[in-house]
Amino acid sequence: MAASLVANGNIAAVKPSVTGRFASVYSEVQNSRLDHALPLPSVLKNPFKVVDGPASSAAGHPEEIEKLFPCLFGQPSAMLVPGDSGEFKSGPSLKIGVVLSGGQAPGGHNVISGIFDYLQDHCKGSTLYGFRGGPAGIMKCKYVILTSEYVYPYRNQGGFDMICSGRDKIETPEQFKQAEETALKLDLDGLVVIGGDDSNTNACLLAENFRSKNLKTRVLGCPKTIDGDLKSKEVPISFGFDTACKIYAEMIGNVMIDARSTGKYYHFVRLMGRAASHITLECALQTHPNITLIGEEVAAKKQTLKNVTDYIADVICKRAELGYNYGVILIPEGLIDFIPEVQQLIAELNEILAHDTVDEAGLWKKKLTPPSLQLFDLLPPAIQEQLLLERDPHGNVQVAKIETEKMLIQMAETELEQRKQGGAYKAQFKGQSHFFGYEGRCGLPSNFDATYCYALGYGAGALLLSGKTGLISSVGNLAASVGEWTVGGTALTSLMDVERRHGKFKPVIKKAMVELDGAPFKKFASMREEWALKNRYFCPGPIQFVGPVSDQLSHTLLLELGAQA
Amino acid sequence: MAASLVANGNIAAVKPSVTGRFASVYSEVQNSRLDHALPLPSVLKNPFKVVDGPASSAAGHPEEIEKLFPCLFGQPSAMLVPGDSGEFKSGPSLKIGVVLSGGQAPGGHNVISGIFDYLQDHCKGSTLYGFRGGPAGIMKCKYVILTSEYVYPYRNQGGFDMICSGRDKIETPEQFKQAEETALKLDLDGLVVIGGDDSNTNACLLAENFRSKNLKTRVLGCPKTIDGDLKSKEVPISFGFDTACKIYAEMIGNVMIDARSTGKYYHFVRLMGRAASHITLECALQTHPNITLIGEEVAAKKQTLKNVTDYIADVICKRAELGYNYGVILIPEGLIDFIPEVQQLIAELNEILAHDTVDEAGLWKKKLTPPSLQLFDLLPPAIQEQLLLERDPHGNVQVAKIETEKMLIQMAETELEQRKQGGAYKAQFKGQSHFFGYEGRCGLPSNFDATYCYALGYGAGALLLSGKTGLISSVGNLAASVGEWTVGGTALTSLMDVERRHGKFKPVIKKAMVELDGAPFKKFASMREEWALKNRYFCPGPIQFVGPVSDQLSHTLLLELGAQA
Repeated sequence: MAASLVANGNIAAVKPSVTGRFASVYSEVQNSRLDHALPLPSVLKNPFKVVDGPASSAAGHPEEIEKLFPCLFGQPSAMLVPGDSGEFKSGPSLKIGVVLSGGQAPGGHNVISGIFDYLQDHCKGSTLYGFRGGPAGIMKCKYVILTSEYVYPYRNQGGFDMICSGRDKIETPEQFKQAEETALKLDLDGLVVIGGDDSNTNACLLAENFRSKNLKTRVLGCPKTIDGDLKSKEVPISFGFDTACKIYAEMIGNVMIDARSTGKYYHFVRLMGRAASHITLECALQTHPNITLIGEEVAAKKQTLKNVTDYIADVICKRAELGYNYGVILIPEGLIDFIPEVQQLIAELNEILAHDTVDEAGLWKKKLTPPSLQLFDLLPPAIQEQLLLERDPHGNVQVAKIETEKMLIQMAETELEQRKQGGAYKAQFKGQSHFFGYEGRCGLPSNFDATYCYALGYGAGALLLSGKTGLISSVGNLAASVGEWTVGGTALTSLMDVERRHGKFKPVIKKAMVELDGAPFKKFASMREEWALKNRYFCPGPIQFVGPVSDQLSHTLLLELGAQA
Repeated sequence: MAASLVANGNIAAVKPSVTGRFASVYSEVQNSRLDHALPLPSVLKNPFKVVDGPASSAAGHPEEIEKLFPCLFGQPSAMLVPGDSGEFKSGPSLKIGVVLSGGQAPGGHNVISGIFDYLQDHCKGSTLYGFRGGPAGIMKCKYVILTSEYVYPYRNQGGFDMICSGRDKIETPEQFKQAEETALKLDLDGLVVIGGDDSNTNACLLAENFRSKNLKTRVLGCPKTIDGDLKSKEVPISFGFDTACKIYAEMIGNVMIDARSTGKYYHFVRLMGRAASHITLECALQTHPNITLIGEEVAAKKQTLKNVTDYIADVICKRAELGYNYGVILIPEGLIDFIPEVQQLIAELNEILAHDTVDEAGLWKKKLTPPSLQLFDLLPPAIQEQLLLERDPHGNVQVAKIETEKMLIQMAETELEQRKQGGAYKAQFKGQSHFFGYEGRCGLPSNFDATYCYALGYGAGALLLSGKTGLISSVGNLAASVGEWTVGGTALTSLMDVERRHGKFKPVIKKAMVELDGAPFKKFASMREEWALKNRYFCPGPIQFVGPVSDQLSHTLLLELGAQA
């Protein structure tokens, strides 16, 4: 398939599809990104050698992790350092597979480009297999051979559509067997799994399995998720977080200016990120909203839904006294998962609804415990109905379907109405709801994500050539200029702990939650009162790809690296 | 208040508030825009004279318009042309007022900057009064004197927060009297009303009133609305449309890549624009969605809600046969206002609900006419409930509250389920809903809107100095380079027709609807079948402010100007 064609106007590249059934043309901005030059860390541009660190342990329960990963446990992390031997400057041709796993994140295509270019630059004659549709592609041996022509149109482009993704896992013995068969059939020297916490755990299990069977196939992971909850000392950030937050912050900033110009709406903005609230925190640091709810804080303070509502109403009342009857409120998608009483209510509802029908007279409600009944009665009628009626195929209440921002608008409205009657609030409250999610997962990668991903991929290529397995590609020192970035791999087992499920220990990479004593949260906490009342709205504007504003890092990353006061 | 302060990092300008009660600092992108140089049409950079065109008429019912505007009717439009006299190169100092009216649109601040700069450049010692909070500011004589320091931080920035806006109208004799008092009190030579169709009608009434009272105060209008429905031969586009559509198109493009990467969702995207579907059409031309609903076409074809649902289901079924179980669908906010049967149902419901209560048994339904009953029963239960329960203070059904995109998802779901049972559809349908609106009204103006607005304002200054009244600032020849843009003013009465309301003729500037035989719609119509099935997704990416991609015009404008095939 043709990789590029020059036609009239702004049509200059054809993006070949995975299936070949369609081709789409590019916008001018997409086109301009195709040939955007990506700087590499210096260590990757010159002869280097791979140096092992000390033996590693695990994030928790090392004895259990050792039992689960007898071949890999304890292996050191690896670091690329300048070396005059040039041993990895050129090597034999390799057969490498790559797979995208889980939800989209801007930059995935650049990881693949990085691996591809490493092989082209240093292992002439290599073959890169792109497994299609996620891990299922490995099991079914569904792949496409990635050529220069195939890869080019995806350089610096958003989405995962080069080879698409999937949410299957390689878990059962049969599935591991299928993966082995693919590795043998394609004679794979290595496999790179680009994914989140679960996918990287899976990558490590695969690495262990291949090693235990004496297969030559090495397996590396790569940290992907817009949620920013896959990180550690050596993996400073997952890719995609930077771009997604910038896209959401652009929208939030615009809504803020709108709120201030109109002067009569409270905008309740729900942001993607179910497990951890990093996205919401980062967007708050970028835009300075009046109210920001952080799930981890709500959980740590054991707050109730009433507490959260009161906090919102308090700020709204104080602002009304200052003459401001508008504002912007950020809410993490997973907020209600952090509220213990809501979890309790859901559990009781699931139990009751499994055995009883919901009678009109409300007799079923008597089976709720008093705190759950009280909470249920506090919920807006629309949410009550949603909980009772829209259940999943197993009959369970669908928490994910609750539009938290709308629920909070209704609860704030009720609370403010009561305060109005008591004379404590005199203004008029009008809420507008927003959900920013899908817009951010497939945007054109920011310069940071484009460069970071390329280095992650290029570094993964080097690690594969050096024979490493069971590592996650790690690029560090990110606050410095790209030339000074460090490149290496972190032992996946060192990131792991175990969880007991169905009586068995299962390895997990624990999600990195917002730490309440971490620099990003502390910065936010030190500013939020000022932001609540004084309207310090910050409007980041659209992501710029050229010019001095194009290379900014996220606040979260800078603060965690200690690079910003 | 300080206009700028240089602090550490990215803080370089303080935006003084209208009230002085708060100040917000700027992001790097906002800062970078402050000093963005704005090119002016050549005619404004050199000595020019104002040339009148032929006598004008009205858009309809000229005899009625003449009765309503005896002083202004028939006056010619004016054009600025090079002139060696330099008569308007410098003039006496003037006292000018400016007001923002109605909803926000990117670029409003630049119109004000343009007026301000014209006065600074050519009428030394002039005073520019910014009326605060819209037309109410005129009536209450609430204003701020716009100084260089005051205006600077708003240059090229989004929002209307420099002086804020409002939706009041100057309509009653008392209100006209108040406006007169303000004009006299401030000794105003002129007033510029920046607004949409209603606001410009109001501007003309004010001009007529001042003229009839022999006040010296001239009144000019300026075409503002993101909806793009205020335009004519001489006013090629309203400002803000360009930026808003580009912001929505960025998000739509991202969602498209997400849809293709995930392969399992239909994204239903509702877009702002209640009266006309220009925004939806422009976004379609920018992004190539699988389905686009244009209200004007639905109305012209007298389509029913069932027709619309069937069209959506047809495309989904055809795509399923091709293996595509994903897609993107654009829906104008005002869609259901274009469906005659829905209007009929709403009217009947309002009538019934005014007299009867809604009984559980559904007896009230018997009062609906058969077609309305059939339509009501077709609606998803959630929408039925919304119509019956959430009524406005007058008891009327709130059409504006219906989330059309969610309604269509539910209707498509039901239709596809039926087809599945009949064997005509075998895939699984999953809808995701989006509403893009507030994000687009206050974004940083695109280079086009920034430049266009500045010229509109600068040109308005020149027209005021030349003594013109009752004109709307008009900048044309927009497909050419900025230097070649034309500048002038169009007689507001020439844009007007009358509508009969409460037995009286009222002047109106008719909203410019999407024309089904216009170039933008025809282009769309010629492509939509291909877009429906072949996935020609186009991802415009974020607005860029520098580089070759930063000066693109909207497709609508280019096609209407005949500048693009």
